[in-house]
Amino acid sequence: MPGPALSNLRVDGERLWASLMETARFGGTEKGGIRRLALSEEDRAVRDWLLEQTRVAGYDSGVDAIGNIYVQRPGADPSRAPVAIGSHLDTQPTGGKFDGVLGVLAGLEVFRTLDDAGIKTQAPLCLVDWTNEEGARFAPGEMGSEVYAGDVTLDFALSRTDAEGVSVREALERIGYRGPETPGARRFAAMVELHIEQGPLLEAEGLTIGVVTAAKGQRWYNGEVAGRESHAGTTPMNLRRDALPAFAEFVLAVEAIARAEAPAGVGTIGMAEAQPGARNTVPGAVRFTLEFRHSDAERLSVMHGQAMSAAQRISAARGVEIELDPFWRKAPVAFASAVAEAIAQAAQKLGLPSVEMTSGAGHDAVAVASTVPTAMIFVPCSGGISHNEAESATPRDCAAGADVLLHSVLALAGTKTCQT
Amino acid sequence: MPGPALSNLRVDGERLWASLMETARFGGTEKGGIRRLALSEEDRAVRDWLLEQTRVAGYDSGVDAIGNIYVQRPGADPSRAPVAIGSHLDTQPTGGKFDGVLGVLAGLEVFRTLDDAGIKTQAPLCLVDWTNEEGARFAPGEMGSEVYAGDVTLDFALSRTDAEGVSVREALERIGYRGPETPGARRFAAMVELHIEQGPLLEAEGLTIGVVTAAKGQRWYNGEVAGRESHAGTTPMNLRRDALPAFAEFVLAVEAIARAEAPAGVGTIGMAEAQPGARNTVPGAVRFTLEFRHSDAERLSVMHGQAMSAAQRISAARGVEIELDPFWRKAPVAFASAVAEAIAQAAQKLGLPSVEMTSGAGHDAVAVASTVPTAMIFVPCSGGISHNEAESATPRDCAAGADVLLHSVLALAGTKTCQT
Repeated sequence: MPGPALSNLRVDGERLWASLMETARFGGTEKGGIRRLALSEEDRAVRDWLLEQTRVAGYDSGVDAIGNIYVQRPGADPSRAPVAIGSHLDTQPTGGKFDGVLGVLAGLEVFRTLDDAGIKTQAPLCLVDWTNEEGARFAPGEMGSEVYAGDVTLDFALSRTDAEGVSVREALERIGYRGPETPGARRFAAMVELHIEQGPLLEAEGLTIGVVTAAKGQRWYNGEVAGRESHAGTTPMNLRRDALPAFAEFVLAVEAIARAEAPAGVGTIGMAEAQPGARNTVPGAVRFTLEFRHSDAERLSVMHGQAMSAAQRISAARGVEIELDPFWRKAPVAFASAVAEAIAQAAQKLGLPSVEMTSGAGHDAVAVASTVPTAMIFVPCSGGISHNEAESATPRDCAAGADVLLHSVLALAGTKTCQT
Repeated sequence: MPGPALSNLRVDGERLWASLMETARFGGTEKGGIRRLALSEEDRAVRDWLLEQTRVAGYDSGVDAIGNIYVQRPGADPSRAPVAIGSHLDTQPTGGKFDGVLGVLAGLEVFRTLDDAGIKTQAPLCLVDWTNEEGARFAPGEMGSEVYAGDVTLDFALSRTDAEGVSVREALERIGYRGPETPGARRFAAMVELHIEQGPLLEAEGLTIGVVTAAKGQRWYNGEVAGRESHAGTTPMNLRRDALPAFAEFVLAVEAIARAEAPAGVGTIGMAEAQPGARNTVPGAVRFTLEFRHSDAERLSVMHGQAMSAAQRISAARGVEIELDPFWRKAPVAFASAVAEAIAQAAQKLGLPSVEMTSGAGHDAVAVASTVPTAMIFVPCSGGISHNEAESATPRDCAAGADVLLHSVLALAGTKTCQT
C-alpha cells in the first residue's frame, strides 16, 4: 500500500487544464468546441503533439495497424503486464473539449506527476489513444478499441469509408498513423478510462466521481410506419390511414415502456420524419429510429418484446403497418470488480463524494472490457451536455478525476516504494 | 328549356379521352403522370396546343397580364355576359393526367359538341385556362383566378419567384403568355368548373357526380415543439425534456379535435421532423405543419381554440414549449345556389347518381366565387388519389362529368332554339 507521502500525491490540475486548452486548438471552433474528426489533419496534429510530449519525457511509444497509439512508462517489474489508461482524442463534428480528450490528457498528467515525484510503479503503465471512438467520420465507432479486443476485424475496419469515399486505410496512411504493431498484441493487466459523464446525474446529485461498474446493453432499430398518403383537404377523418397518429401512439408506447424500466432502462426515438412531407398531404409513412438501453440483458429483451407488441397492436387498430428492424444489439457489460473497487477506494481516500454508476453511452472501455479487466471513472459535465461545442467541465472536477485515475492506477500497478 | 333533341345531346367521350391522352404528352412522365409546372416549357406547349385547337375552330381568344387564357364562343345575344367554364392546365411536380386538365378539356369538348350539333347559346361561352392553380413552382396557388377575383394584386403575383429566383413576370415573358388584357376585365354571368374529386367519397358511395355547393375554410399553421436535446444513453427518462413524445400527444390531440368535427372538419399534420435527427440524441425539437379545414367558419374557430389549448396543456405538463404560428387562413366559401341547382338538375336529367358535396381542396372556382356566381362538378377518381402520377379517372366518368358540364352551361346560358 502507498505510504503517507504517496497518499498525499496529487496531479497538477493547472498543468492538466493547460494541456486541455492547448490541444483544444487542434480543430478548435469559434464557439469553443472542437471539430477533430478521426484521422483528419487535426487528429494528426494532436497525435503528433502527444508523441512529442512523450518523446521529450523519454517514453517509448508504438502505433498499431489501426492507428492506436501506445505510450509506455516503464515499471520496476518489466515482466508484469502494463496497467493501461486509455481514451480517445477524436471528437464529434461539433464536439466539445472534454469527451475522450480528458481521459488521454489526464493519463499524460498521471505520467508527469509520477515523473515529478520520482515514483516508479511495479507494473509498467501504458497510455492509449484509441482510434476513432466517435464513429462520426467512419462508422462504426469504438473502432480502435474494438479491433484491439477482436470484436471487429482489422480488414473490416480498414475498409470502412467516409462520406467522400476515403477508406480508413487511406486516411491512416495519409496522416502517417498506420503503424506496424498488431492490434491486441499488447496485453494489459487492467485498463482505467476517465471520462466526462455526458449525463446529468453527478451534477444533479452534487457528486464528483462516478465509479462506473457496468455499461448498458443496447438494441437499435430502424422503423417505418406505412399508412396511406392522401389529400388533406378531401379525405374525411374516417377514411384516412394516416401514418403520423399511429406513429404518435408508438412514440408514447415506447416512452411508457422505458419509464417502467427507469432508471436503469431508457428508450429513445431520435430520428423521425413524416413522408412525403407536404403541408396538405396526409402522411403515408413515417421513418424513424429507436433504441433501448438497459443494464440488465433480460429487461432489455422484455423492452424489445413490449415494443414489438405495441407495434402490432397499433398496426392492427389503425390499419397501418409498423415495421421494426432490430439491426444491431450489444449485450450489457459488467466491468471488472477489482478495477472498480480500486477506483472506489481511490475516491474514498481522496475524500471525493462518489457513486456507483452504469454507463449509458458506448466507450473504448466498454469495447476493451471483454479482454482486459476494465472500469471507468466519470466526472460531471455541465448540464449533462456532450457531443456539443458547449460541453463543459470544471478545472476542479477534471483534476479530481485525474487524481482518482492516479491513485487507481497506483493501486493496480503497485509502487516500488512499498515493495522495497 | 332545351327541347327533346337538345336533352339527348351528349359529348363525344372518346374525343374527350383522346384529348386528355394527347395533351398528357406535354410533360408526360414514365409512370403515366404529368410534370407540367406553371409557366414552364411544358405549360407553354399545352397552352399553344389549346390555342391551336380553338384557332382551327374559329374562336376568339385573349390572354391577360397574369397569363389566364380566355377562349370565347359567341352567343346569340352578345350583350349578355358569358358563362365561363374554367380550370387549369398546370400540374404538380409529379401530378396526374386529370387534376385541372379535365375541366379545361371538357370545356373544349362542350364547345366541339355544340359546334357539331349547330347549337348557339344565348349568352356567349368562355373557356378559361387559369394560370398556376397548383402553386407548386410559384406560391401561392390559384394565382390566375385570385388575381382575376382581385384577392391578390397583379404586382404581387408577378413578383413571386420560383426556387431558381425566376419571377412569374419573367416566366410569363419567356413563354410568351404575358397578355395585354387586364385580369378581371372580362365579366362572367357564371362559372362552372368540372374537376376530379381528389377524395374517396364518390367512389365509396358508388356515385358519379358531386354537386359542389361550398368549399371548406382553412387555417394553416407552422409549429414547433422545443424541448431539450440530450444524450440518449446517459439521460434518465425522468430528467428528459424530449420534444417527440410531447409532439406525439399533440398529434393525437389534433386527431381527436378533427374527429369530433367529422365529416365536415378535417385536421392534418403533414410535415413533421425531429431535430437534430440523430439516432442517439433525445430530440430537442420537432418542427411541423398543421392545417384545419371545415365548411363552417365558427367550427373552424373552435378547432383553432382547441388546438391552442392542447398545445398549452401539453407544454405545461411536459416542460416543453409548443408554438403554433397561424400564418394563413381562408374563410369557407358558399357557391352560388343557382349554379349548383343547374348542375344538380343536369345530373338528374342525365340520370346520373349525384350528391351534394363540400370541396375540401382549393380550386380556381373557390377563388372566382367571390366575384362570379360559381359552382363545381366533381367526378370520382380511383382511390381518391390525386397529386400523384397514379391519379386515375375512367373515360366513362370523365364523359359523364362533361355531359353534366354541357347541360349545366346550356341551362345557364340559354339556347337559341328555345328562344326562337
